[in-house]
Amino acid sequence: MGYDWISFTTDYGLADGFPAACEGVIARTAPTVRVLHVTHDVPRQDVRRGAAILAQTVPYLPVAVHLAVVDPGVGTSRRPIALVTSSGVLVGPDNGLLIPAAAALGGIVEARELTVFHLDPVSATFHGRDIFAPTAARIALGADLASVGPLVDPSSLVRLPEPVTVFEPGRVTTEAVGIDTFGNIQLAVRDLGVEVGTRVHAQVGDRSLLAVVGRTFGDAPAGAAVVLVDSAGQVAIAVNGGSAARLLKAEPGVRAVLLLARR
Amino acid sequence: MGYDWISFTTDYGLADGFPAACEGVIARTAPTVRVLHVTHDVPRQDVRRGAAILAQTVPYLPVAVHLAVVDPGVGTSRRPIALVTSSGVLVGPDNGLLIPAAAALGGIVEARELTVFHLDPVSATFHGRDIFAPTAARIALGADLASVGPLVDPSSLVRLPEPVTVFEPGRVTTEAVGIDTFGNIQLAVRDLGVEVGTRVHAQVGDRSLLAVVGRTFGDAPAGAAVVLVDSAGQVAIAVNGGSAARLLKAEPGVRAVLLLARR
Amino acid sequence: MGYDWISFTTDYGLADGFPAACEGVIARTAPTVRVLHVTHDVPRQDVRRGAAILAQTVPYLPVAVHLAVVDPGVGTSRRPIALVTSSGVLVGPDNGLLIPAAAALGGIVEARELTVFHLDPVSATFHGRDIFAPTAARIALGADLASVGPLVDPSSLVRLPEPVTVFEPGRVTTEAVGIDTFGNIQLAVRDLGVEVGTRVHAQVGDRSLLAVVGRTFGDAPAGAAVVLVDSAGQVAIAVNGGSAARLLKAEPGVRAVLLLARR
Repeated sequence: MGYDWISFTTDYGLADGFPAACEGVIARTAPTVRVLHVTHDVPRQDVRRGAAILAQTVPYLPVAVHLAVVDPGVGTSRRPIALVTSSGVLVGPDNGLLIPAAAALGGIVEARELTVFHLDPVSATFHGRDIFAPTAARIALGADLASVGPLVDPSSLVRLPEPVTVFEPGRVTTEAVGIDTFGNIQLAVRDLGVEVGTRVHAQVGDRSLLAVVGRTFGDAPAGAAVVLVDSAGQVAIAVNGGSAARLLKAEPGVRAVLLLARR
Repeated sequence: MGYDWISFTTDYGLADGFPAACEGVIARTAPTVRVLHVTHDVPRQDVRRGAAILAQTVPYLPVAVHLAVVDPGVGTSRRPIALVTSSGVLVGPDNGLLIPAAAALGGIVEARELTVFHLDPVSATFHGRDIFAPTAARIALGADLASVGPLVDPSSLVRLPEPVTVFEPGRVTTEAVGIDTFGNIQLAVRDLGVEVGTRVHAQVGDRSLLAVVGRTFGDAPAGAAVVLVDSAGQVAIAVNGGSAARLLKAEPGVRAVLLLARR
Repeated sequence: MGYDWISFTTDYGLADGFPAACEGVIARTAPTVRVLHVTHDVPRQDVRRGAAILAQTVPYLPVAVHLAVVDPGVGTSRRPIALVTSSGVLVGPDNGLLIPAAAALGGIVEARELTVFHLDPVSATFHGRDIFAPTAARIALGADLASVGPLVDPSSLVRLPEPVTVFEPGRVTTEAVGIDTFGNIQLAVRDLGVEVGTRVHAQVGDRSLLAVVGRTFGDAPAGAAVVLVDSAGQVAIAVNGGSAARLLKAEPGVRAVLLLARR
């Protein structure tokens, strides 16, 4: 029983050694467990972006305890939780961060509040090190889930608002849910229902680009825009060899409209 | 005998593959040893910040050889050293970097100059790869400490100047010793001696903020300042959901004054 | 048979979890294999810089499958390949990225196109996860190289243009091939043929610095320039405690001239 792997996602950044302190706590508790770092560069306190990265990565990870901490409410009354799924356990704050990943892993089977495996003392500002990492390590070691703390009613869990997408003839209105470091703008829609080769106006905020619907970056000329289904299965706006986010001055959460150009 | 873990701290950055070359040398010498990366983003040549991160992280790491390289004097006459403590060995340059971590690990039991386990040839600019990593790997493999080189008198080791803190009635004058990537300003004092809820003027350089003494970021309203004891046990100035360093234009080493607001 | 290690080099950046998705695919396929991250911060789509970092790092790595992806042509007709050498296998795109590392490992013994061990489906934009990582994992597990896909004629492989260096009396004209994060400018020449202590004008683009030929950074006064043989055995222009690239506004690929100052 237990898990061979702990995946680890935070907004701590790598500079200050914060992820290493958590990894050290894991290594002291569960020396044979291996840590797979997903990212520690989630934009600061951006729970929604952290949730998207985690949900889009877990399908490719081994069965694991997925430890994730983007936690603006650290030290306040927000609950530390574990979500059990049919293929892995998620550990982190009850602020919506873990929910999309739980869905990607088949849904929540059981939820627990983490009240037991805390370091002593617990700092008020670093629950990744003092609550989440030691609990994840104990679960990886094989601790019974009932031992980490009391049951939580899944309907009481904090959830992020769902982005809204509206399809109209020749027009899709949706939201930019994430911008990756290549400047590709991921949208909250998985299928445009238009053919490769179609031309669309991609409008984000108050700027727009004329783009071709394609399969990959190279389907547009160098420097030109392409709308494609990205590697997470989401529709995205990209620029071949460039940054769509820079050209469109896109920010996460902004409204995005795709208009068929032939209209 | 030997050590299962090598922790690894540098200012090399991750972009150029320099930490990987060192990790490769370790893997070739000691294939079963596991490397735990603390950070490779210490601000360039900032020995003091590297020393603080290492000292604040090692208490949470497994017993290990702690390899650390922030080394403006690489290739000059500064000595490469190993410091033996009661719970681990530190390996790096003799420039003060290792001393606070040695104290955190219980103090220096023995110091050695590293003269033996060098790659051949040794480059003049990359002792991390050519001297420190191979020596750390051999110590992890179980090499007798006497085999790494001659004894060094601990009183001859280079030490960083200690920051000065002065307590006066209603006023503490100290130093900003480190700024983390959240913009929290860590001070060279561990206990203010004032109660949670007290209001203080936090002055750093020529700017100041009115702050509340609290336990965590959320004890101040969003965008407001809080003075708290951070996860390393040091007093720090923070802004809830923001960056105290940006608001105060703080730089490491600058003078910081905390004034009770009720005066 | 097989390999204990996979080294991993990309321009994906660490923020979005892309290297982690690849590492997850490896962990699911080959759970006992260990991944050694070389860098994921190759400048975006800079095949030449990626090739240089990989070639300069592999001599220090354990025998491994070296997985490398800097791949502006992902999803187009460029071939995914494996290059077998006498001490390791390189896996990545056929765009020149792997060739210098193959030379550093003793030369290409056999080349294969990767047509077999693909995830299903293969995305058009993330072959690192869907083609390169699963193939590298299978090779590490011991798959016969003949099983990864058909032979490729090594003479058909895409190669990067070689930089040109011209030696004239008192003058060497070459190219800046790489700039590391310390701002050191690596040149396409390995031996200047001048003695330590010689003074040279180091001209990069339309700016120049007076530099001393030295062994290490400290051979120049603080803030002054030094020309040295770097840890990869290449001649480089550096500034002690500063950034030569910033002072010279150097960019990769620009022409560099070293002139003996005594002329």
